[in-house]
Amino acid sequence: MSHAAISDVLAGKHQVDQQITLKGWVRTVRSNPNFAFINLHDGSCFDPIQIVADNKLSNYAEVCKLTTSCSLSVTGKLVESLGKGQSFEIQAESIEIIGLVEDPDTYPMAPKRHSVEYLREHAHLRPRTNMIGAVTRVRNCLAQAIHRYFHENGFQWIATPIITASDCEGAGEMFRVSTLDMVNPPLKEDGKVDFAEDFFGKEAFLTVSGQLNVETYACALSKVYTFGPTFRAENSNTSRHLAEFWMVEPELAFADLADVASCAENMLKYVFKAVLAERMDDLEFFDLRIQKGLIERLKTLSEQEFVRMDYTDAIEILKNCGQKFEFPVEWGIDLSSEHERYLAEKHVGGPVILQNYPKDIKAFYMRLNDDNKTVAAMDVLAPGIGEIIGGSQREDRLDVLDERMIEVGLSPNDYYWYRDLRRYGSVPHGGFGLGFERLVAYVTGMQNVRDVIPFPRTPKSATF
Amino acid sequence: MSHAAISDVLAGKHQVDQQITLKGWVRTVRSNPNFAFINLHDGSCFDPIQIVADNKLSNYAEVCKLTTSCSLSVTGKLVESLGKGQSFEIQAESIEIIGLVEDPDTYPMAPKRHSVEYLREHAHLRPRTNMIGAVTRVRNCLAQAIHRYFHENGFQWIATPIITASDCEGAGEMFRVSTLDMVNPPLKEDGKVDFAEDFFGKEAFLTVSGQLNVETYACALSKVYTFGPTFRAENSNTSRHLAEFWMVEPELAFADLADVASCAENMLKYVFKAVLAERMDDLEFFDLRIQKGLIERLKTLSEQEFVRMDYTDAIEILKNCGQKFEFPVEWGIDLSSEHERYLAEKHVGGPVILQNYPKDIKAFYMRLNDDNKTVAAMDVLAPGIGEIIGGSQREDRLDVLDERMIEVGLSPNDYYWYRDLRRYGSVPHGGFGLGFERLVAYVTGMQNVRDVIPFPRTPKSATF
Repeated sequence: MSHAAISDVLAGKHQVDQQITLKGWVRTVRSNPNFAFINLHDGSCFDPIQIVADNKLSNYAEVCKLTTSCSLSVTGKLVESLGKGQSFEIQAESIEIIGLVEDPDTYPMAPKRHSVEYLREHAHLRPRTNMIGAVTRVRNCLAQAIHRYFHENGFQWIATPIITASDCEGAGEMFRVSTLDMVNPPLKEDGKVDFAEDFFGKEAFLTVSGQLNVETYACALSKVYTFGPTFRAENSNTSRHLAEFWMVEPELAFADLADVASCAENMLKYVFKAVLAERMDDLEFFDLRIQKGLIERLKTLSEQEFVRMDYTDAIEILKNCGQKFEFPVEWGIDLSSEHERYLAEKHVGGPVILQNYPKDIKAFYMRLNDDNKTVAAMDVLAPGIGEIIGGSQREDRLDVLDERMIEVGLSPNDYYWYRDLRRYGSVPHGGFGLGFERLVAYVTGMQNVRDVIPFPRTPKSATF
Repeated sequence: MSHAAISDVLAGKHQVDQQITLKGWVRTVRSNPNFAFINLHDGSCFDPIQIVADNKLSNYAEVCKLTTSCSLSVTGKLVESLGKGQSFEIQAESIEIIGLVEDPDTYPMAPKRHSVEYLREHAHLRPRTNMIGAVTRVRNCLAQAIHRYFHENGFQWIATPIITASDCEGAGEMFRVSTLDMVNPPLKEDGKVDFAEDFFGKEAFLTVSGQLNVETYACALSKVYTFGPTFRAENSNTSRHLAEFWMVEPELAFADLADVASCAENMLKYVFKAVLAERMDDLEFFDLRIQKGLIERLKTLSEQEFVRMDYTDAIEILKNCGQKFEFPVEWGIDLSSEHERYLAEKHVGGPVILQNYPKDIKAFYMRLNDDNKTVAAMDVLAPGIGEIIGGSQREDRLDVLDERMIEVGLSPNDYYWYRDLRRYGSVPHGGFGLGFERLVAYVTGMQNVRDVIPFPRTPKSATF
């Protein structure tokens, strides 16, 4: 394409006093009979660039009437800006008006403050706002950094299945995937739906996690990770829940809980550093408008050591700290956000990796410790949010795994392929899960995960 | 972790004559009373490394009895290998046997040739084979290169929704997503299912493409792309179809068909170069065992100019070429694979970008050309496969778009948000779609897309 990106121009990558063409959308226009000043934006960075047009332009009258979101192609001379806050500007030689805005007075993204709820209702136009544009660039930066971190460290990206018909995953909070007629489905003699007639020949659902599947690849290629969508049919209308969200799930062979914890710490620091290095323009907006101190916190997090702490020690700390909690603290409880945040924010003053949880509050596949009471699980707790990562070493001993499955009411036969990994060259291995939208919310300071994914899916809402 | 990757060792990244620890799985063992030679593999590269153990090892007898896929931790001295074909080997000082193989005689991945059908039935163990291991590394390399290409060129990755309740996409070949009871769904007075009671408050499906959604982001951030799963409930049992597959869909604002075609050519060349630079070990396997001449073809493709050709000219070429085709050639037909391959393989002898197709065989959103007969669509046709990419410039004129929608029986109101992009600062824009599994199959020479995705979903099959 014959035009330049505004990000490159503002970063000084183009020669001054040369002719250049830019294409983008109008943010604002100020004009008088002699000059018009247009802020032009193309989404490549936070800032627009200033276009200076004078009344010698043949279409100067039209230019003065431009409104927010009109699309333009501008050709002119790139010059250093004398105004404050701007490094460069364009002295327009010609302005081609590409697309106007129909009835500017009713344009839904008119330049004023909109509530986040209003923006969600206009999810197709909200990327045109400063806020959602910045979220989009930071989200992209984080995704790229995650792929880069794993690639540089010898991990293979694995696409685990989205549709799953494994009999083993309880269907309670899952979405069914089907092509059967809903009004007259084929029925079996017992009156139940005959899913043998369905597309996949059995009842199928949307995945809630790629972990069990990706373990099969870890037990062949050593270091692997997933990065894909996962689903929960929970009727949760909170700022932290989506019915459809993206998860990152690395899995390491020949690894114990300490290796998994190190991987989580290193990955988080890597992506925090990436966003600080690449998206300071957007972060400055979030720091100013969304959450004060955000940049400082990211800097600290990217350097500070993550403290390791045993669950059992954490319970003692919480019981003896003198702080009153809504939910009482006893060994065996699942920690609440208030407890996690106390540990990270007050007790440690930084991120904590909490390890070795009671087995009764954790999943069957986590490796049983020698005390027979706890499992090799870990959560990363971060200041300002609480749990951001959850992981574990996996049970690699077939007999212990079978016992645990029976204990929690699962049938080992349903997991024959998962059990095979323990029958044929079993190895210590483990991994963790990171909810990608929670990471984006944490890094941007955005309060609701619905505002950090382009088209959020929540109960009673799947528009666009 | 305290062990090295075999890929790093074989690449000479570790100092010789030093002690090193490696962890992996046995490929083969040969032994005599004095020495045992173990090929150890960890999935980090195609080749295993040779471990030389002598009978001074305290567990030498056990070592000699090891079988394929037993897991080991080996510590020993890294030395340059005297044997041919191997750069380095390990003189073992200790071998810890981590996991044995239960009943080696019935181990499903015993070291012999297995049919691809047999391997699909053991999709949880097949990454342990040379072939599927190599596919996995090449697939990862291609995915990383795609993200890198777009990131380096200023594109933002956008997660378009997987679940969609847009009224506009014909539900014919889509999977329904629901939490309603299938036996007794809530019904409306007219006897139809009352989807207002469903999780999303209306009938919802799995997406077939992120394009319409991602256009909303292109019209705000200029350059964007999707890379995510898409779904087709087609009852197609072919080597080229999956019910669940991954798609790459870039979308460029301020771009015409020529820009879209250049982007497709540049991206393909970039990823071909990446796989040649990074995964020559795996490519040599595919060239030797799967498809002769594969490497040479990739080299040519990564350098050769992609020829641009009009559909109308292609029809003339096919009609006059003297070749007999199964499907007769007339202006207006949708080209078959035999036609596409003739153009790429025989007529041009390289990739062809075919442009400006009859509007009646293309989608409503493609930009109508001034001849009123063709649209600004393009397909990239590659030797040995035919169509690998399909794309278009999008219709950016609201009145023409509306006319086209009505012409093909769609209701413009259902597309209000898509139409809004043409009402508020419309810009010329376009993009393309690349089926990721078809790309992986093309690069590896694998004949069936079911063998280039970890857990393929096809009619009557969603195991694991």
